[in-house]
Amino acid sequence: MAQLIADRRDIEFVLHEQLNVEQLSKNDIFAEFNKKTVDMIVSEARNLAVKEMIPTWKEGDENGCVFDAGKVSVPASFHRLFEIYNAGEWLAMNEKPEWGGQGMPRSVSSAASEYFNGANYPFMMYSGLTHGAGKLVEEFGTDEQKNIFLKNLYTGKWTGTMLLTEAGAGSDVGALETTAKKNDDGTYSISGSKIFISGGEHDMTENIIHPVLARIEGAPAGTKGISLFLVPKFRVNKDGSLGAFNDVVCTGIEHKMGIHGNSTCSLTLGGKGECIGTLLGEENKGMKAMFVMMNEARLLVGMQGYSCATTAYMYAVNYAKERIQGANLIKPQNGGVPIIQHPDVRRQLLIMKSYVEAMRSLLYFVGYCNDIIAVSDDQATRDKYQGLIEILTPVAKGYVTDRAFEVCNHAIQVYGGYGFIEEYPVAQLMRDCRITMIYEGTNGIQAMDLLGRKLGMKKGQVFMDLMGEIQNTIKTAKELPTLAAATEKVETALNKLGEVAMHMGKTAMSDKVLNAFAFAHPFLEVTGDVIMAWMLLWRANTAATKLDGAKKKDIPFYEGQMKSLEYFTSCVLPVTFGKMDAIKATNGAMIEISEDSFIG
Amino acid sequence: MAQLIADRRDIEFVLHEQLNVEQLSKNDIFAEFNKKTVDMIVSEARNLAVKEMIPTWKEGDENGCVFDAGKVSVPASFHRLFEIYNAGEWLAMNEKPEWGGQGMPRSVSSAASEYFNGANYPFMMYSGLTHGAGKLVEEFGTDEQKNIFLKNLYTGKWTGTMLLTEAGAGSDVGALETTAKKNDDGTYSISGSKIFISGGEHDMTENIIHPVLARIEGAPAGTKGISLFLVPKFRVNKDGSLGAFNDVVCTGIEHKMGIHGNSTCSLTLGGKGECIGTLLGEENKGMKAMFVMMNEARLLVGMQGYSCATTAYMYAVNYAKERIQGANLIKPQNGGVPIIQHPDVRRQLLIMKSYVEAMRSLLYFVGYCNDIIAVSDDQATRDKYQGLIEILTPVAKGYVTDRAFEVCNHAIQVYGGYGFIEEYPVAQLMRDCRITMIYEGTNGIQAMDLLGRKLGMKKGQVFMDLMGEIQNTIKTAKELPTLAAATEKVETALNKLGEVAMHMGKTAMSDKVLNAFAFAHPFLEVTGDVIMAWMLLWRANTAATKLDGAKKKDIPFYEGQMKSLEYFTSCVLPVTFGKMDAIKATNGAMIEISEDSFIG
Repeated sequence: MAQLIADRRDIEFVLHEQLNVEQLSKNDIFAEFNKKTVDMIVSEARNLAVKEMIPTWKEGDENGCVFDAGKVSVPASFHRLFEIYNAGEWLAMNEKPEWGGQGMPRSVSSAASEYFNGANYPFMMYSGLTHGAGKLVEEFGTDEQKNIFLKNLYTGKWTGTMLLTEAGAGSDVGALETTAKKNDDGTYSISGSKIFISGGEHDMTENIIHPVLARIEGAPAGTKGISLFLVPKFRVNKDGSLGAFNDVVCTGIEHKMGIHGNSTCSLTLGGKGECIGTLLGEENKGMKAMFVMMNEARLLVGMQGYSCATTAYMYAVNYAKERIQGANLIKPQNGGVPIIQHPDVRRQLLIMKSYVEAMRSLLYFVGYCNDIIAVSDDQATRDKYQGLIEILTPVAKGYVTDRAFEVCNHAIQVYGGYGFIEEYPVAQLMRDCRITMIYEGTNGIQAMDLLGRKLGMKKGQVFMDLMGEIQNTIKTAKELPTLAAATEKVETALNKLGEVAMHMGKTAMSDKVLNAFAFAHPFLEVTGDVIMAWMLLWRANTAATKLDGAKKKDIPFYEGQMKSLEYFTSCVLPVTFGKMDAIKATNGAMIEISEDSFIG
Repeated sequence: MAQLIADRRDIEFVLHEQLNVEQLSKNDIFAEFNKKTVDMIVSEARNLAVKEMIPTWKEGDENGCVFDAGKVSVPASFHRLFEIYNAGEWLAMNEKPEWGGQGMPRSVSSAASEYFNGANYPFMMYSGLTHGAGKLVEEFGTDEQKNIFLKNLYTGKWTGTMLLTEAGAGSDVGALETTAKKNDDGTYSISGSKIFISGGEHDMTENIIHPVLARIEGAPAGTKGISLFLVPKFRVNKDGSLGAFNDVVCTGIEHKMGIHGNSTCSLTLGGKGECIGTLLGEENKGMKAMFVMMNEARLLVGMQGYSCATTAYMYAVNYAKERIQGANLIKPQNGGVPIIQHPDVRRQLLIMKSYVEAMRSLLYFVGYCNDIIAVSDDQATRDKYQGLIEILTPVAKGYVTDRAFEVCNHAIQVYGGYGFIEEYPVAQLMRDCRITMIYEGTNGIQAMDLLGRKLGMKKGQVFMDLMGEIQNTIKTAKELPTLAAATEKVETALNKLGEVAMHMGKTAMSDKVLNAFAFAHPFLEVTGDVIMAWMLLWRANTAATKLDGAKKKDIPFYEGQMKSLEYFTSCVLPVTFGKMDAIKATNGAMIEISEDSFIG
């Protein structure tokens, strides 16, 4: 049977040949994660994804969630699936075993995450947000909060959410109007309305725990006056038993383009004055705490979008190998052939292949950076890898989801007319994928993050570290003559990126700041392109060294790595150079044009 | 109230300032279409679109078409709308009055078409296909066929379709298996199954006329043995009255990503041996006849995709001017501002603006070429404009729908989270738009058409004529110093396009033909980019000459034309140059990569 979701061989390549994750098991905290265990984890995740999750994905889309008088029902099959998933202890793969986690390296859990999200990402959102809420409690909670909430979240007994957005406060979180009033017992009475709350209400668990951003009465305006609260749907007694309903009322769910299996709720807190929360972390430091979660959430969103892309790519390849249509252009006498023989289909499949492979390597690498931090006792090393994570986050979210959507779009085109029909899987993948470009900070905001915050971090040292990592790969690749042409192109691209970054940094600090930010997204694009080229070079270099004496069945795989690099450097990087030229020219039309010129 | 669908000022600009369509009224056949009449037509089309069509669009999406035991019900509101539309005689705007047409210039009807399709393109498909079927009868029908069918089609009393696709014959029409057996009375018994038939069954009219591609028993394999038949749902007596049911059975409708308001049917013809058709045109010349219709249909599909884009652009601009979110980057102290002040939003709006304007000009210009042919008595002129239409068709379909989808995608991003919610209009626009990249020949096929058929037409003369037209615009623009920088860039782009075209033509005729076709779509892209630049230069040139002494309210409009050109030449053309570099390098990875390298 054809593989689904992800190419297992490629996952193994990244884990064992590109990143050598087994090396991590030399450290105590990861001691049990030797190669055999890692492979077993990947196999188990794949089995669960293919056998249990994929069959629920379409139902989630077609039936969606149902809202009725404040209650939300998820698709019927999700109930059993959530039990199986929790029984397998998949929700907190990286967390400490004492709280119900598995203590797995993030590079390894990336593979499991890819399979799960590729199989049914709307379902996975329930656990993903639960994990994020748990993380907030783990990082900022008091011992009491941890004892009450943490294990129940990490084991999926309860789920969690993230209550930021309000009708008038989307990208501008600081504009929120939900209030908190301190009570005599130290708790807070919460009052306000939140929208776009993923998993905000559902019928899978007995309780739902909401981290809520609100403003304590009298606190400053804007983000400086925002605090974070823990607000359960049902109050929780000190012994962990459930108390009264906490006046968190679901007033409706959204009718969305995709991710129908996940409930997107409007919630009213304290409509009857009976919504009680406890402060999580310090007063007025809510945004800082939320950013911890948001950075993780952004990486997760990158994984969600990417997972749609890898799944779409696999479907497209399988389809292109099976679908007979039209003759081979140079052998018309042979009649109909599988469409993978047609040049334009190959073009699309190779675009998809290159991006999927490079994105996989990038996302696993970001996980790997976390693992290095976890095992390193050298502060400089930890700082460096933390910096890499931070500068790669807008790329792993913004650039990756843009490309993931593009890959899904190509999959529809490869399917032709069938791509538009919902009985086939690719239309839904594109619809599901679309939101990843928007939530957790639109990709425009990711671009601003890269230009406005990350590029200048530590006076540019973080960006220099990233360039240094890429340079190291180039240096290694230069030893292989077969990669010479491609390596040279990657090096040219890296040098040009350095110039562009310098130019953008300067422009952003000049009186042309608005012009700079009009090019923030193009800058994210070219940065992402160069990072894709880096990953493909790293891969091709690894593959090239393995080709000699490789098993016969591995040869097309390794050669395919070289082809991805060749394609990307020959067909994508020239376009990147064009984008860089446009950025360097920094034309002012976008800023100068009058508002009245849009629509005469 | 904010304008919807299209910027009326811009439509007038194209009709009266760029193309000067009033000049056409100097000719007898267009005598009545003076400026006043043209403006009245546009106003009436706009009123109908805004007041009657837009309100039915969402219903069409939400309720869709319903299939029950061979019958299909369209959304309830479509019935009355179809009556109003037909009462206004909009179905055959360009056709001869003797058959129920209005005899309007195509440049002018483009404006009406834009409003209608932008308002509810799934609804408009019923009349669009009816028009196409009528055109086939008009061009290839016997007098008897014309008398029976033509007026009833052009007035919308009956609707028409187009039966090409079968489950095993999509892009490869020649693989079809539907058969026709000649009867003693000269009619044919038709037998076969067709899929993806837009409007193949519905409850709006008493009869449906199906032009059907089928193979007469004993005819050659492939496209050479295909004939075209006229197959009504109900047989038609010689006096025009309806006869028996003609054994055309709808077996189901598709569940699609978009255009839910249009029924996409599977039809079985002659399941009981009682489906009778009459030959339309000559035996075995069916493909040639169908191409007449397909070329028109391709232009219509370009209009459909484009109309989604202009509508999405208008919604996005209106939203960006109203939605308050976040502070101005350089005036944070002023608090929340309309998001049109944010650089990344302006970037997206200006991309959308440039494409929408350039695409409008292109589509109207193609209509205008038809008008020139209609009024010219010089064969060389007619040949030249016919050539322009033919070479512009793959661009007007393939390139335009690719960009239209991109514009819709930007609209979603401008809306942020609301863009993903189906209560807002932009999600549906993108879903509706997506099929335009696929049907009437996928955009990959459009690219093959440009490279394989159009580029070499008349030994390249047609492409040279196109280059010459662009060169003329450049020559005129050179007289305006304010446009000097942009004009120079457009000229560079045109010269580079010439080189690329020469290279592609040579490569396609060499043993590297597969490599050439792997770059067919990129070649379509750069050709389209240069044509967009041409249109924007033509517009800016027109606007620049009007700025002196312009009315105050026109100044932002004219200046906006200069900004579109400035943006496009500064930010898009450099990327085009990168794409051209990649095409010229014509890397072979896409062709050389082994099938086994896709998925290891």
